[in-house]
Amino acid sequence: MVGASKTETASGPIRYGMVGGGQGAFIGAVHRIAARMDGEFQLVAGALSSDPERARASGAEIGLDPARNYASFQEMAKAEAKRPDGIEAVAIVTPNHVHYPAAKAFLEAGIHVVCDKPLTSTLADAKKLAALVEKTGKVFVLTHNYTAYPMVRQAREMVQKGLLGEIRVVQAEYPQDWLTEDLAATGQKQAAWRSDPKQSGAGGATGDIGTHAYNLARFVTGLELDSLSADLDAFVPGRQLDDNAHVMLRFASGAKGMIWASQVAPGHENGLKLRVYGTKGGIEWVQADPNYLWYTPFGQPKQLITRAGAGASPAAARVSRVPSGHPEGYLEGFANIYAEAARAIRAARKKNGKPPRDVIFPTVQDGVEGVAFVEACVRSSKKNAAWTKL
Amino acid sequence: MVGASKTETASGPIRYGMVGGGQGAFIGAVHRIAARMDGEFQLVAGALSSDPERARASGAEIGLDPARNYASFQEMAKAEAKRPDGIEAVAIVTPNHVHYPAAKAFLEAGIHVVCDKPLTSTLADAKKLAALVEKTGKVFVLTHNYTAYPMVRQAREMVQKGLLGEIRVVQAEYPQDWLTEDLAATGQKQAAWRSDPKQSGAGGATGDIGTHAYNLARFVTGLELDSLSADLDAFVPGRQLDDNAHVMLRFASGAKGMIWASQVAPGHENGLKLRVYGTKGGIEWVQADPNYLWYTPFGQPKQLITRAGAGASPAAARVSRVPSGHPEGYLEGFANIYAEAARAIRAARKKNGKPPRDVIFPTVQDGVEGVAFVEACVRSSKKNAAWTKL
Amino acid sequence: MVGASKTETASGPIRYGMVGGGQGAFIGAVHRIAARMDGEFQLVAGALSSDPERARASGAEIGLDPARNYASFQEMAKAEAKRPDGIEAVAIVTPNHVHYPAAKAFLEAGIHVVCDKPLTSTLADAKKLAALVEKTGKVFVLTHNYTAYPMVRQAREMVQKGLLGEIRVVQAEYPQDWLTEDLAATGQKQAAWRSDPKQSGAGGATGDIGTHAYNLARFVTGLELDSLSADLDAFVPGRQLDDNAHVMLRFASGAKGMIWASQVAPGHENGLKLRVYGTKGGIEWVQADPNYLWYTPFGQPKQLITRAGAGASPAAARVSRVPSGHPEGYLEGFANIYAEAARAIRAARKKNGKPPRDVIFPTVQDGVEGVAFVEACVRSSKKNAAWTKL
Amino acid sequence: MVGASKTETASGPIRYGMVGGGQGAFIGAVHRIAARMDGEFQLVAGALSSDPERARASGAEIGLDPARNYASFQEMAKAEAKRPDGIEAVAIVTPNHVHYPAAKAFLEAGIHVVCDKPLTSTLADAKKLAALVEKTGKVFVLTHNYTAYPMVRQAREMVQKGLLGEIRVVQAEYPQDWLTEDLAATGQKQAAWRSDPKQSGAGGATGDIGTHAYNLARFVTGLELDSLSADLDAFVPGRQLDDNAHVMLRFASGAKGMIWASQVAPGHENGLKLRVYGTKGGIEWVQADPNYLWYTPFGQPKQLITRAGAGASPAAARVSRVPSGHPEGYLEGFANIYAEAARAIRAARKKNGKPPRDVIFPTVQDGVEGVAFVEACVRSSKKNAAWTKL
Repeated sequence: MVGASKTETASGPIRYGMVGGGQGAFIGAVHRIAARMDGEFQLVAGALSSDPERARASGAEIGLDPARNYASFQEMAKAEAKRPDGIEAVAIVTPNHVHYPAAKAFLEAGIHVVCDKPLTSTLADAKKLAALVEKTGKVFVLTHNYTAYPMVRQAREMVQKGLLGEIRVVQAEYPQDWLTEDLAATGQKQAAWRSDPKQSGAGGATGDIGTHAYNLARFVTGLELDSLSADLDAFVPGRQLDDNAHVMLRFASGAKGMIWASQVAPGHENGLKLRVYGTKGGIEWVQADPNYLWYTPFGQPKQLITRAGAGASPAAARVSRVPSGHPEGYLEGFANIYAEAARAIRAARKKNGKPPRDVIFPTVQDGVEGVAFVEACVRSSKKNAAWTKL
Repeated sequence: MVGASKTETASGPIRYGMVGGGQGAFIGAVHRIAARMDGEFQLVAGALSSDPERARASGAEIGLDPARNYASFQEMAKAEAKRPDGIEAVAIVTPNHVHYPAAKAFLEAGIHVVCDKPLTSTLADAKKLAALVEKTGKVFVLTHNYTAYPMVRQAREMVQKGLLGEIRVVQAEYPQDWLTEDLAATGQKQAAWRSDPKQSGAGGATGDIGTHAYNLARFVTGLELDSLSADLDAFVPGRQLDDNAHVMLRFASGAKGMIWASQVAPGHENGLKLRVYGTKGGIEWVQADPNYLWYTPFGQPKQLITRAGAGASPAAARVSRVPSGHPEGYLEGFANIYAEAARAIRAARKKNGKPPRDVIFPTVQDGVEGVAFVEACVRSSKKNAAWTKL
Repeated sequence: MVGASKTETASGPIRYGMVGGGQGAFIGAVHRIAARMDGEFQLVAGALSSDPERARASGAEIGLDPARNYASFQEMAKAEAKRPDGIEAVAIVTPNHVHYPAAKAFLEAGIHVVCDKPLTSTLADAKKLAALVEKTGKVFVLTHNYTAYPMVRQAREMVQKGLLGEIRVVQAEYPQDWLTEDLAATGQKQAAWRSDPKQSGAGGATGDIGTHAYNLARFVTGLELDSLSADLDAFVPGRQLDDNAHVMLRFASGAKGMIWASQVAPGHENGLKLRVYGTKGGIEWVQADPNYLWYTPFGQPKQLITRAGAGASPAAARVSRVPSGHPEGYLEGFANIYAEAARAIRAARKKNGKPPRDVIFPTVQDGVEGVAFVEACVRSSKKNAAWTKL
Repeated sequence: MVGASKTETASGPIRYGMVGGGQGAFIGAVHRIAARMDGEFQLVAGALSSDPERARASGAEIGLDPARNYASFQEMAKAEAKRPDGIEAVAIVTPNHVHYPAAKAFLEAGIHVVCDKPLTSTLADAKKLAALVEKTGKVFVLTHNYTAYPMVRQAREMVQKGLLGEIRVVQAEYPQDWLTEDLAATGQKQAAWRSDPKQSGAGGATGDIGTHAYNLARFVTGLELDSLSADLDAFVPGRQLDDNAHVMLRFASGAKGMIWASQVAPGHENGLKLRVYGTKGGIEWVQADPNYLWYTPFGQPKQLITRAGAGASPAAARVSRVPSGHPEGYLEGFANIYAEAARAIRAARKKNGKPPRDVIFPTVQDGVEGVAFVEACVRSSKKNAAWTKL
């Protein structure tokens, strides 16, 4: 049986708090479900909004102990660090510009961090944060959740094992359609902050979803980028950040790639897709149908490998909960990140503890790379799509 | 935003116990994840195996309090009923023949029941259980989990609203391939009890998956069966119960249907599929790709309706957790059954409490119907596929 | 390169005539394109309608020589048999009840016959026709065109080679939606004759499309039928022939099957589909996407075999015209029947000539079997779906 | 009924000849089937190879009259021009570098031309050819065959009618895998000339398939290109022409696009795909499944429009031969080009004759644009992907 034995663990769940994720938010609830799915985490504290009143109301709504329902993350970091039953970890699920100060506060308070992507709103902040993680030695997990889908893990393993041969071409795309019209103008909270440079950083679609596509391509192929050429647009009148990005990639190995990220492509809900082609074969994975992985060894029929089915590899089985044909989805993939975080945090409890070797999660360095990607895209586009290094 | 605000509730989770689901089991872990997903339930007691030693070991493995890690369900029902912090509900996830005695013990102890399908191993037991539920007034939820997928809910709503017109034809199928060879002979626990008449009841594929297909067809269409004609086979030499079932259906309304259930169809992992055709249109839903619902109004292009996307109805949105394009799966569907159970149980706490009108879950009566279906299939097949009423 | 060299042949095309297929007809034009595609046939004569005036007008419209544009098939058979440049073959594309008298006239005139399906409108006629073919020794080709798709040929070859092991289950379906409403009442010619027992015979959907499904299942599996149980309906008020058929099959080998044929299933244009499952693997083929064949060896990933692609067999390549990825369709499949007919006819020119061994086409015996299937379905359904032998 | 009445026409087929397309060729046989499908053309002459001996043998094989089986196109143009029954049109299906001299010879001989793409191997030739077409007034049809698929015609009509609103993004791709290894080194004729700059021109994948993708994008959207940025690679060691092309597009309207063309992408047989997104909706079309067109009006469910089905437009029906659900393919699409050519040629027979207004085919100007695209890609790539105008 695949990983179905995951469940409440003998030693009890890890106590954690949350920054952001209050009323009107999207990703906070996703983190809470993901953290809860395997019984590895228990939410005991929160500062769920930058608005103190909304923070209190949001915490009450989800049943937080009033004593640990904080008005600000600063207050929370300080108070929890002092409690004997204080949180061991914090999930940061705010708009991007808050990631850095919040992560800093908790890391300095000795608390492990699970942080949403992109890492920060500026590359400068990203680098400072990486240094701080290094210095404090705390566990820092970035929720590039798509890397934790079982078939993505398998794709990576297949590349590593050489089944595709030498990689020549990488095609990544991430089209959506929710910003086809000026949604921010209607006051929709998600659209508003995501298209505000002060909260999002320099990238719009590039930062919100382009980073996912880039991260996924790197995760699966292991290729290092040499330079990129980007042509960004903000098609909706008045929009300050890009809503469509065309990017050509040159990898250090000589492989080439393309990324298309768009929020104005009607018909695409959340169309992340990755295709990789090498001298010996190709693979294709589509996020909306995540239990399938197409594999084409050159000169043979296409194979449809299914999660936990015949052909699924140990790397996929390790992060599966139910048998093949019983589809897993977005929340299970997200929960895999939390499951990996739990393993790392439990290992860190021991003196000189290190996570088991098979624990895989996106790190602060992946986050730095992602913010560098966004800023390089913006720089390139401003220079008429000149080739730009990260 | 869809139901993403589901989360820990102010009043705390419902304490529940589990019967069955120990080492080597499949569905027990699924129930535990489903119960945990929305933070509505907390597992505090268990009798996880009919073998006392295995029960203890299994409970220890998942971190049960030793004092509430019972050697038998009888002991558990008795002890929990006496505790001030005793369980409010129990999940019964044993082989079929234990469903009745276990459910009886807990219902009589005043404890709500969530029970796996099929309801019991005999129709006689099923009817006694239905009477007992009626008498005790406790909440009884049968986990025909496929009815809780958002797009199945929408399909049902569309039929109820008349979008398909008068139903003429129902095509349901549930092929699998895991019993293509004699898996029970290898000692595989799942295969062993599912092909043992003493533990499973009269039906093999018919009971294990045919009931799901039949239940789903009835749930979506609301049609009542008049009679059926079944041709059952056990293709694998030595197998005692059917592994392939062909069934023709005649509904009371004049509509007709077919069901194909098989465990010997290579290439099908868990291929539950429902198609319904009426005077005005048709729909198609496939369990392995559950976020999609095909809808074809006669004379118009086919529409692909997506969970939480454009075209998703309130019935679907109500049981969705994440936006469209972020796929939900089997565990989310299963968790919807638990979420409905939680609403019913919370309502039952109040004097004369009734669940809110929009709570939907498979009842003990659905369970009686399911066992009657299995036994009618077996009777029909023994009489050369004679038309047989439930 | 696949069979792309097919083209005008040195010895010139075979002269043929057509009976039926005039204005308002559907399948006549299909036959003409199919006959023309490989340059193997040239249309030189016709009796395109049973109405003499319409026959003349139809022939003029497509450019027939006025001298060979006949008012009736009787006249045509007589006249052409006398001409030194008379037709060598005739295509019969009339409503079903004309097949027998027309075929008789041409066979007795020494002219080869290509005839649309079902063979005749009664089993008695079918048997007489088979005897006549035997007696005359002329080539007789029945256009069960779906057997000539390359991937159907491959499916058959795979079964013959034992790749599926012993066949256990056959699932065939052929849903359409064009008769969901009472189209015949509008005067639509196709609908009118197809739902008229005098022209169609005893079967509606059963005869028009059920025979295709049954023929395809037999062609691919080679199984012999023992008996069937059929439940037929005419859902549209006033319709005289069945528009929906549910059939259970028992093969002589012990294998079981189901056929669903419907003309009232909204969303299905021409949904012929065949699935076969054996002890070693399964296959699936869908007519609307005919260049693909799914193959699942038990315990291995599913393979998508493409026409003329990697994994395509000689049996498929032999009847392919263009490389993989360049989709072939319905007309190419139909043309393969004509290409096989041409090979048989050219072989028959020689004394004691026999077609090459690899020539494959549906014969008059397949036609007898098809009409027997239709009549058995009707008999079974009238006896409450009693098991019935052909 | 859709265009099923197409057939032999009263006035007899158009006599045509062929240049190229002898033994070992691919596209010649395709042209011959396409020309034959609707009975509009009859092949009566040929110069099937640049090698006189192979030309004779090839012509004999397909049954050409020895008197009209020429050793060279020059000879053929001269001789046919003099014959009272000489060819009215010629199909040029040679390697690219022969297109110009051959077309010139026949145009100057007063013979209409159907020519394979790309138009020529150099832009200079292309422009001279365009001038010659203008001067001679003969019909010149370029077989950008993909524009003649019914659903491509419908896509174009939908854009023209404004159903997509203002176009923002165009994504075109054309991956193949047949040159993943060094096929030319094995002596394969197709691979050899296509990767030889002298025969192909400056572009490899760019010229062979990139031009198709670019032409298709322009055909459907009607957008004019402002400039492009291209990054071309020859991944296979020793290959002289590009086998992978990444191109970013800027249209004059402000719309943006990407083209990916590759011959080294394992798993892709002939993966031409076009996606277009506007302010009001999106469409998607895939060549391998050409009977389907996805249409997504923003904020509504996706619609799957099928050729000749509900939702098919007059533009699609006009070039359909069989009803929906009966798939048409590559040859039918190609034949549509010939059918349009026939209408243009018949119209040209009349003094001052012009084709009917609804006749649509790729012209010599489209060909000039295509060769300009190839040369611009090559220029851009040599300048480090600098933005380049055609």
